[in-house]
Amino acid sequence: MPYFDAASAAPLHPVARQALLAALDEGWADPARLYREGRRARLLLDAAREAAADAVGCRPDELVFTSSGTTAVHAGVAGALSGRRRVGSHLALSAVEHSSVLHAAAAHEAAGGTVTQVPVGRSGAVDPEGYAGALRDGTALACLQSANHEVGTEQPVAEVAALCAEAGVPLLVDAAQSLGWGPVAGGWSLLTASAHKWGGPAGVGLLAVRKGVRFAPQGPAGERESGRAPGFENLPAIVAAAASLRAVRDEAAAEAVRLRAMVDRIRTVVAERVGDVEVVGDPERRLPHLVTFSCLYVDGETLLHELDRHGFSVSSGSSCTSSTLEPSHVLKAMGVLSEGNVRVSLPMGTAEVDVDRFLEVVPGVVAEVRERLGAPVSAPPSPAPARSLVVDALGRRCPIPVIELAKVIGEVPVGATVTVLADDEAARLDIPAWCEMREQEYVGEEPADRGSAYVVRRLS
Amino acid sequence: MPYFDAASAAPLHPVARQALLAALDEGWADPARLYREGRRARLLLDAAREAAADAVGCRPDELVFTSSGTTAVHAGVAGALSGRRRVGSHLALSAVEHSSVLHAAAAHEAAGGTVTQVPVGRSGAVDPEGYAGALRDGTALACLQSANHEVGTEQPVAEVAALCAEAGVPLLVDAAQSLGWGPVAGGWSLLTASAHKWGGPAGVGLLAVRKGVRFAPQGPAGERESGRAPGFENLPAIVAAAASLRAVRDEAAAEAVRLRAMVDRIRTVVAERVGDVEVVGDPERRLPHLVTFSCLYVDGETLLHELDRHGFSVSSGSSCTSSTLEPSHVLKAMGVLSEGNVRVSLPMGTAEVDVDRFLEVVPGVVAEVRERLGAPVSAPPSPAPARSLVVDALGRRCPIPVIELAKVIGEVPVGATVTVLADDEAARLDIPAWCEMREQEYVGEEPADRGSAYVVRRLS
Repeated sequence: MPYFDAASAAPLHPVARQALLAALDEGWADPARLYREGRRARLLLDAAREAAADAVGCRPDELVFTSSGTTAVHAGVAGALSGRRRVGSHLALSAVEHSSVLHAAAAHEAAGGTVTQVPVGRSGAVDPEGYAGALRDGTALACLQSANHEVGTEQPVAEVAALCAEAGVPLLVDAAQSLGWGPVAGGWSLLTASAHKWGGPAGVGLLAVRKGVRFAPQGPAGERESGRAPGFENLPAIVAAAASLRAVRDEAAAEAVRLRAMVDRIRTVVAERVGDVEVVGDPERRLPHLVTFSCLYVDGETLLHELDRHGFSVSSGSSCTSSTLEPSHVLKAMGVLSEGNVRVSLPMGTAEVDVDRFLEVVPGVVAEVRERLGAPVSAPPSPAPARSLVVDALGRRCPIPVIELAKVIGEVPVGATVTVLADDEAARLDIPAWCEMREQEYVGEEPADRGSAYVVRRLS
Repeated sequence: MPYFDAASAAPLHPVARQALLAALDEGWADPARLYREGRRARLLLDAAREAAADAVGCRPDELVFTSSGTTAVHAGVAGALSGRRRVGSHLALSAVEHSSVLHAAAAHEAAGGTVTQVPVGRSGAVDPEGYAGALRDGTALACLQSANHEVGTEQPVAEVAALCAEAGVPLLVDAAQSLGWGPVAGGWSLLTASAHKWGGPAGVGLLAVRKGVRFAPQGPAGERESGRAPGFENLPAIVAAAASLRAVRDEAAAEAVRLRAMVDRIRTVVAERVGDVEVVGDPERRLPHLVTFSCLYVDGETLLHELDRHGFSVSSGSSCTSSTLEPSHVLKAMGVLSEGNVRVSLPMGTAEVDVDRFLEVVPGVVAEVRERLGAPVSAPPSPAPARSLVVDALGRRCPIPVIELAKVIGEVPVGATVTVLADDEAARLDIPAWCEMREQEYVGEEPADRGSAYVVRRLS
């Protein structure tokens, strides 16, 4: 049963499992104690810290283990901001950071700080010049992910780090999605990561803070992990995390080549066979194992459900998934289509035959969902006499408003407009994206009694 | 090799190990996802929550899993204080709480709140009337442990909870040391616990918040665990924690009888065979498995080291352990001897033969350490002519100042004084404690050029 959602949680690596089992026997005691079980636990903890620091590219005393990637981000952002509060309270970050970074930024803002979101281009990457502009006086910290978790685009971390260094601003890099593939290049000041993203166990994050970076841990004091991560060390999981990071790194170069080729095939074949699809994210500067595409006229939840029925576990940043009604902030910031969104992230070791089968199944599944929703199958029908049309999609959820638009666009003459009335939040994103894909003109959004009126001019 | 430090970390229960292994295979995926691996993880998480809530005595939707007992305490204290900030910012807690509670209180104080520490008696228990006095207007929260982690004394939680209810103040109970033995009686509002204290894995804490208790989670927002515990759920460990809590509870009644008898023997035999020893904590209202005693004229670190050499892993709240130079705040608050302190906490399943061997070994080890330090072995020598004496113990660490005092007390006539000059912080606690044990009069402390002068009058 192919599981293609490694970016959410990678299956446990065999080395992680072995190390965890061994450490359950050897590393359950308190490493702060002086008796033999404590000393043994301390040795394991020290060895794990050395291995993890080696993989990160920092000194062991610069690295602490936290209880998750999220807590590493929260502790790192809060500690760095507080350490530099005399400089100012401005935080610069990209618009496509992981929610843990955005939540930390929101908490900073709620406490009186200021935040600048650096925009991204259509590929999902920031322009380093965008950071240069955001690093104004009083900037305490900048944050940039190493690679995006939804579309796989790699960020220009080294360039941004150089700009930050020039401005004297520390850069925190959220390396959650990339650390298993290799160390983060460039002169970062703080780095965070999450073990269950590379095949380690849940319950372990990393926070590295370079010597010389001002850092003031927030929250109640703690004796563990240099006062940077409260609570008893989750030692067996830490040992497993460090061991699996090393193991994964040994396999990374070969796996990257293999998975990159599979993802290239998915990018090509989906674009060819599915039709009315937008493959998003940078095609070159990207994570080896991750690809995201959005299918017009399809709702993400049904699509995921159908793929699950066919045995494929994939994820979605679509607004139509049940966990949230908000369209993905990443796709929104990129200005790409969000409806019918599918993220495929291949775990290491993925068999090519499973990708083959996925590529056989996807076109049919998308077509079936489209048919069920009454979406247009091929080119729009021949033009009808009406000069302009209003479509009422009020109360209808994504992807219905776009489907209704597509159904009638052929009925107005070139130059005339279709106005879609919709109150679904995703329409604001998806109607302009559809226009861009279909080379129609998106005239704009007007207020309406209920929801908004989205005006589209037929160009061809 | 007998491990007698269950109060720091209990060895992993076999059921925890089994459940962890099973959940590594079944529960590694994201429980928020809709595909089969996610649904399976969600089922495991729901079942674990139900089992844990059942053991705690609350509803499943009142309980969240945190990354440790410490983070449960930090989140619980901060959330409850913030939820009631319109009422006031006063926090009442006992003087013998775990450091995680004290650190949360210190953070509250640093942020402008006020804190009252309710004193304890010589047994380590609070007087409920002490809480009644502390629950003044503007009290947002009260905290009380279910049982003390250093001396095992059970606190009058039900009585204090009733007083809190009367005053309309929520009570947070830190049940870390007792939850494996049974649910906490009385009308508590919030409860925290730690899985590795009952034989579950590290990396899991519990926070229960009764419906109707005002609670505002602090720190960056999170989607997991009702927004009360950030980060990806540590699911395999959560499953193991819940399963082992149930298993431990099944064994608790029988084990409590067995271990209580062993601890009674330790209390009796140590007092008889070691001599110059104070067995601390309530002899009746106590945890079944924990006993603490302090040995005069011995330093804790050497004692722990020697016991370790003989194969016994025990802990110490003594000021002489390497991890801290401060005497234990618990022993200090109780006003008992802190030097040569040993905490024995028996894991479930402890074999009686290991306790026998411990009782054979301890008297010899203590005697040997005393001899090495030149401590008085038996009754003090016959009185000498000097009317009063000054002993210079400046720069000497615990237990030397007390040893020097004991050596010379017999040299002054009854009614005369010995003045000990000392700059070791432990002397302030241990010289009065020695006086109480030896029925000599502690006259008081006077400032000196360096350190302090402790004046003792010989009474017998």
